[in-house]
Amino acid sequence: MFTFEELLEKINTEIQKRTQELRKKEPLRLYEPVDYTLEMGGKRLRPVLVLLSYNLFSEDVSKAIPAALGIEVFHNFTLLHDDIMDKADVRRNRPTVHKKFSENGAILSGDAMAFLAYEYLLEIESARITDVARLFSKTALEVCEGQQLDMDFETRLDVTEEEYLEMIRLKTAVLLACSLKTGALLADAPEEMAKKLYDFGINLGLAFQLQDDMLDTFGNQETFGKKIGGDILANKKTFLLIKAIEMANSEQSERLHYWINKEDFIPEQKVKEVIAIYNQIGVQQQIRKKIDSFYLHSLEILDELKVSEDLKNPLKSLSNKMLQRVF
Amino acid sequence: MFTFEELLEKINTEIQKRTQELRKKEPLRLYEPVDYTLEMGGKRLRPVLVLLSYNLFSEDVSKAIPAALGIEVFHNFTLLHDDIMDKADVRRNRPTVHKKFSENGAILSGDAMAFLAYEYLLEIESARITDVARLFSKTALEVCEGQQLDMDFETRLDVTEEEYLEMIRLKTAVLLACSLKTGALLADAPEEMAKKLYDFGINLGLAFQLQDDMLDTFGNQETFGKKIGGDILANKKTFLLIKAIEMANSEQSERLHYWINKEDFIPEQKVKEVIAIYNQIGVQQQIRKKIDSFYLHSLEILDELKVSEDLKNPLKSLSNKMLQRVF
Repeated sequence: MFTFEELLEKINTEIQKRTQELRKKEPLRLYEPVDYTLEMGGKRLRPVLVLLSYNLFSEDVSKAIPAALGIEVFHNFTLLHDDIMDKADVRRNRPTVHKKFSENGAILSGDAMAFLAYEYLLEIESARITDVARLFSKTALEVCEGQQLDMDFETRLDVTEEEYLEMIRLKTAVLLACSLKTGALLADAPEEMAKKLYDFGINLGLAFQLQDDMLDTFGNQETFGKKIGGDILANKKTFLLIKAIEMANSEQSERLHYWINKEDFIPEQKVKEVIAIYNQIGVQQQIRKKIDSFYLHSLEILDELKVSEDLKNPLKSLSNKMLQRVF
Repeated sequence: MFTFEELLEKINTEIQKRTQELRKKEPLRLYEPVDYTLEMGGKRLRPVLVLLSYNLFSEDVSKAIPAALGIEVFHNFTLLHDDIMDKADVRRNRPTVHKKFSENGAILSGDAMAFLAYEYLLEIESARITDVARLFSKTALEVCEGQQLDMDFETRLDVTEEEYLEMIRLKTAVLLACSLKTGALLADAPEEMAKKLYDFGINLGLAFQLQDDMLDTFGNQETFGKKIGGDILANKKTFLLIKAIEMANSEQSERLHYWINKEDFIPEQKVKEVIAIYNQIGVQQQIRKKIDSFYLHSLEILDELKVSEDLKNPLKSLSNKMLQRVF
């Protein structure tokens, strides 16, 4: 049985090996942005989830590494194309690909990463390879659906809590769930267990994304790593804003809409004022309740999984870390 | 045994069925551009090649249809993203996706098509499904490499004939070859035959792309369907320009570079003058020789294929049509 840290080490070693190979491939201008993106780092959560899940049923985790890598390459592809669509200039303290190279370069190298993800994924030798590839394709399409919903919400003020949860399920949760199920399928786990791990991932993913929303507004800038209040400044339809609009009395609602519609403002002031309204309404308590509920449900599902309890510990400890953001 | 027309009919029926399904999928803004792209029409060459190749070995072509469709969806994905990169406003007499919808919409719906292509491809039930998916991923990555080389050539005047042929091999020929090999693999044909069909496709694809270059300059506007001289106006490094630069005497070279470097010109005059230089040098004969050589080589490969001669006729007749552009 491997710890989270040991599996992360395996993933990082493999990524290093692959990026070295990519640096030798032609045309250079296609593969340089791919290499740049993969070398940027990141938490490598998804590939580690593949291996942790695989490791519940089988010790030989090396067999699952190409699939884990494929999912990580796919995740990085989505970040690359999302950054073009969001016109984001910086990711992980470095210029985004379309800023550093060119927009055309970012589109095409992103496309190449999508196919590279499949190339890695399909390296695996497994009786369940078709199931894995089908699950991956379905998931990839769902992630696109989630990104589209997120863009659709930009121009709407009437997004419901239910619609929001469906958006983050597609945009964030299904890929975590897919990672976990992929590990189980590759280890040839029974269908029922693979499904449970998928559901565990959905609940964990929803809690994880909601916490990201919470920290964007109520977090500590240093441990969060991004500037606080970005969502408020962009009028992003997060759980907090949706809940605030839903729960506000008429005076709070008026103030909230004043700040949403104001085009000329001092950023710090808008963030401060909107947080004050959020605090009056008590949306932080609401989001905390929601996060806890999804997180507890994910643990219940894990409890039902019929493998020995000590095997589940690395997965539990990673979930715990994810929700406390200590790494 | 099916004729080209019968197989085309099957493909078109299937595309109609699938686009009807796509129109019901949410979010609408993600799937509308996909539907729009697939409904634009086109020659459906690649899916028909899958079925023609399959039909050399097996009668039950319906089994290969999802894979044929996947390849067609992938081909349309490349057109969609290429149009963004080329800033093209019109395709098949209709506004391109990024013009009709938005650039972000075109990026994301294109991405969705890439995954939809796999979803269709992976519907097939076949012992060779992994081989097919691996070939497809390798090919998709090569097509990205070809597109990158094509973009790299824009800023170069020293592109060699060999580099050019490698670029069109990647950008155009490998997908035709992949279509043919996919049909063979799905019909469980021997590896050697699948390989021959692949090589047949490479040679056919090279001839096809060279002819496209030739017609862009020397074609008849009505039968070609695009405005004549577009490549000349864009200083595109086609076989014609590369060969002209290579073969020009010093006076011809000077006139050619004059027109390449001139920033202010009357389009019709530039086209007329460059064609006059091409005619003096005799590049049309050069490209015709090259087309014939690839085409004849493709037929030689087909001759070597050990299936009965009459089975090869639909494939031969399609190649013939492709090279004469009568449809």
